[in-house]
Amino acid sequence: MGDYSVTVLPGDGVGPEVTEQALEVLLTVADLYRHKLTIHHRLAGLASIAAEGVAISEATMQTCAESDAILFGAIGSLPAHERRNATVKPEQALFRLRKDFQFFANLRPIRPSRSLYSASPLKPSYLEGTDLIFVRELSAGLYYGHLESVPGKPSEIRRTERGEEAIDTLLYTEQEIERVVRAAFDIAVARRRLVTSVDKANVLSSSILWRRIVERVAVDYPAVTYEHILVDACAMYLVRDPSRFDVIVTENLFGDILTDQASMLTGSIGMIPSASLGVRRSQAGTFGLFEPIHGSAPDIEGQDKANPVAAILSAAMLLRHSLGLHEEALAVEAAVEEVIQDGYRTVDIQEEGAKVVGTREMGKRITAALR
Amino acid sequence: MGDYSVTVLPGDGVGPEVTEQALEVLLTVADLYRHKLTIHHRLAGLASIAAEGVAISEATMQTCAESDAILFGAIGSLPAHERRNATVKPEQALFRLRKDFQFFANLRPIRPSRSLYSASPLKPSYLEGTDLIFVRELSAGLYYGHLESVPGKPSEIRRTERGEEAIDTLLYTEQEIERVVRAAFDIAVARRRLVTSVDKANVLSSSILWRRIVERVAVDYPAVTYEHILVDACAMYLVRDPSRFDVIVTENLFGDILTDQASMLTGSIGMIPSASLGVRRSQAGTFGLFEPIHGSAPDIEGQDKANPVAAILSAAMLLRHSLGLHEEALAVEAAVEEVIQDGYRTVDIQEEGAKVVGTREMGKRITAALR
Ligand SMILES: CC(C)[C@H](C(=O)O)[C@@H](O)C(=O)O
Ligand SMILES: CC(C)[C@H](C(=O)O)[C@@H](O)C(=O)O
Repeated sequence: MGDYSVTVLPGDGVGPEVTEQALEVLLTVADLYRHKLTIHHRLAGLASIAAEGVAISEATMQTCAESDAILFGAIGSLPAHERRNATVKPEQALFRLRKDFQFFANLRPIRPSRSLYSASPLKPSYLEGTDLIFVRELSAGLYYGHLESVPGKPSEIRRTERGEEAIDTLLYTEQEIERVVRAAFDIAVARRRLVTSVDKANVLSSSILWRRIVERVAVDYPAVTYEHILVDACAMYLVRDPSRFDVIVTENLFGDILTDQASMLTGSIGMIPSASLGVRRSQAGTFGLFEPIHGSAPDIEGQDKANPVAAILSAAMLLRHSLGLHEEALAVEAAVEEVIQDGYRTVDIQEEGAKVVGTREMGKRITAALR
Repeated sequence: MGDYSVTVLPGDGVGPEVTEQALEVLLTVADLYRHKLTIHHRLAGLASIAAEGVAISEATMQTCAESDAILFGAIGSLPAHERRNATVKPEQALFRLRKDFQFFANLRPIRPSRSLYSASPLKPSYLEGTDLIFVRELSAGLYYGHLESVPGKPSEIRRTERGEEAIDTLLYTEQEIERVVRAAFDIAVARRRLVTSVDKANVLSSSILWRRIVERVAVDYPAVTYEHILVDACAMYLVRDPSRFDVIVTENLFGDILTDQASMLTGSIGMIPSASLGVRRSQAGTFGLFEPIHGSAPDIEGQDKANPVAAILSAAMLLRHSLGLHEEALAVEAAVEEVIQDGYRTVDIQEEGAKVVGTREMGKRITAALR
């Protein structure tokens, strides 16, 4: 009944393969629930550099801006020998999208399926009850040069009398911290109402400010319990006692490291979707970018081996957050769980007695389970 | 037969409890192998702030400088409400020691004992064959303000028209990277000859310089294989496939996070020792600081519950690296393994059928096993 538009940026490596399956799921949902869905296919990353000389073009940015949501695949890397002097890098597509659209809250849910406990490196007793979501700050920190804030170029390699040196700056403003912390508390209200804020306040000024702002925001959420933990301790607890967490909020680079680590609880990074959300409203939700947290995995590119689940669950998050289609999102998640319970596995979550299938068959089975 | 001196800084929380056991081991070794060992007890951290108003005094720094090695316990934190405006913080003791003595290479070995597989959150098949060592850069990076390098104060919270903002700077010079990378390759030569360098070269300038220098140093070690991996991928592999690693070299904060995470493979952070080494030679080795990687654990302070193994294994590293006493170091490590195999456990590595003992009894049994 709705009329929506989505820009699809499959990107590089296995990106196009998994995105194809996620798109198939979206189109099936549109068909089943009678929504009109307009899809714009565009390039990003290495694919875009090859075709247009830039990691993402102005025209593509414009198309994204006019859509309700962006479905993203994965971004490739330049080969090592080309990296050094390259001025155009594929990652710039992601950074540009995140920064220009102010996608400050990156949601990454970790909920190991019981049917996959045997594929996880962790013992089942350590997984039991784990259901957490990361809210990773995505628009600031070490990822972005703050040319306007620091005299001189803030992120660079420069030559001094004693040789080369390199500098990156980690800058956070009050507003940048407050908006993501608020997003985390908002999410916690609808969950188990525990926020864990992760920082390195015994070392970093930015973490001291971070803590202060968490304290201030928390006052507005009397029903939510919160705690501060250090990033090193968090990395430990994510292995020893992951079920203690509900909502984890942290800065950009800490979030990058901890979410990849935590993905292993589910058995594979190929299981974890993400939503990057900002302030802009779409028709019935928040304009956002949705992508699996895995990379372009060039080693298995074109081999029909990649796990499409992360991309498909990202499509579910797109339905929920940007299109406001909650029932449809739940239906997709249920279809994934059903196929997993039926014993179908891509190689990354392979186990004894499982039926190992390729990217396409896994996708097809999930689409079929929707009908 | 040797004549050595060690400065002991027990620090805060459980620091004194575990250090007492480690010291007992050192004294027993000295007795058994007929070395003369002079011990200087000094304060650091909260204990020093309370007594002398500083995290570590000049006199204590001097005593350290005149010793062959420093045996360190753990550093406490100020309570939250005192942190905000405090100018003296206990962590400064550690930063000062690391910076002034240029302890740039922090060695943290991770080798899960087979007798402790059942105490680990990981399934035994994932632990099998794991024997890795981190070489964490310890004297630079985000931990240190580079007042001389960046115009303006590089790590601070400041007020702007739009509210507060905080900035930290991540700076590495060529020399700082080269010396720690060289240390890692040197260590790899005597092991399985694989160096994994961990960075975030798709985002950070400092990581791009880091990679370049690894390439350059590697030329001098044709027998050593090396690889670059991203820090997020490393956090993943440390859960999924830890036995793939031999020597992991990385910058300060990445090392902080990854080593705490990896400690969980052994079942407890209370099992992991460390050596912080610089350029200064001691009588028969390298002047260094030796400490468990765990913190001061104020929640169990004074309860005879802390695991003294990390501190005792740190004493073994002290014997090996600063005093050049290799046989003695091996004897201590064997004594620890024997007591573990005999089924004695502190609460952190407690398991069914184990004999749970306190800090003191664990220490006594290890000392006894030495004789
Ligand atoms: C591709 C890379 C720049 C990116 C990041 O570090 O943010 C990725 O690891 C992620 O987590 O989305
Ligand atoms: C106490 C703290 C400042 C310290 C660090 O971050 O280096 C600790 O976590 C460590 O790993 O030795």
